[in-house]
Amino acid sequence: MPELPFDPISEAARQWRKHWGASAVPSMVAVTSIMRTEQILTARLNEVLKPWALTFPRYEALMLLFYSRNGSLPLGKMGERLQVHPTSITNTIDGLQKLGYAERTRHEEDRRKWLASITERGRVVAAEATEAINAARFGTAPLKRAQLQDLSAILRELRDDADDLGS
Amino acid sequence: MPELPFDPISEAARQWRKHWGASAVPSMVAVTSIMRTEQILTARLNEVLKPWALTFPRYEALMLLFYSRNGSLPLGKMGERLQVHPTSITNTIDGLQKLGYAERTRHEEDRRKWLASITERGRVVAAEATEAINAARFGTAPLKRAQLQDLSAILRELRDDADDLGS
Repeated sequence: MPELPFDPISEAARQWRKHWGASAVPSMVAVTSIMRTEQILTARLNEVLKPWALTFPRYEALMLLFYSRNGSLPLGKMGERLQVHPTSITNTIDGLQKLGYAERTRHEEDRRKWLASITERGRVVAAEATEAINAARFGTAPLKRAQLQDLSAILRELRDDADDLGS
Repeated sequence: MPELPFDPISEAARQWRKHWGASAVPSMVAVTSIMRTEQILTARLNEVLKPWALTFPRYEALMLLFYSRNGSLPLGKMGERLQVHPTSITNTIDGLQKLGYAERTRHEEDRRKWLASITERGRVVAAEATEAINAARFGTAPLKRAQLQDLSAILRELRDDADDLGS
């Protein structure tokens, strides 16, 4: 991205206040800031994960398999845990399969269900990629520990409201 | 999304701490919280904007035209302001054109450049959709004004670092 002569979100706040009054400005600014931050983080994470041809959604799925007791999980359960659509998790696992990091097989007890399993190569990559992503602090520079914790606490309230986390 | 028996991000934090130690946990939690929040907000905003067949990126582009002095802007400038790729802004404007909210024409002085212009119908829709989105506080419930401001202030530091806002 080129250097900007001004902050586009501050400029949007100015226009908003002028046309519609001040009341919705804090929510507009927060939402556009989150949208832009998601873009920035995705770009940074994909850069860190590039050596293993991983994207962040693929990495998240790989780690879920890595942490699982037998190295395998039903696709439906993975979709639930990653909070993504069934078609989306199928694509993600197929991506990991092409890379040789996971395999997709029929569930032995229920042949209608699909199971994903991490490969030996997948385990090595999970550890290597996590070392890189931890060292990069998930791309959160220049935010400090306390800021990250404040951020998570605020977003937790919104997630509770939307996802019914039972907390 | 179904009700979850636990918070998947808290569960990820537990696994992270166990396998890799505590140091990267706050950044992992913050990043996955932002990713999930972006999904929640996108779903909520698309729901609010449904009566006008708008998505949030289309709405943002429409508002940029609405605020512009002559109701029209070069596509290159719009991509810069919305911080998206040139191909992405072209698709967005074509979407608005199909809905009758904007038109894409050749720049009169420089025929290699494209210009987007808001239509009369687009102006009406911009005002109606903004009323709805302001009333819905951009989907930020249950967050309060002070929380939204704290959130924006923290994310501003990250945006400054990534986007070089010259501030």
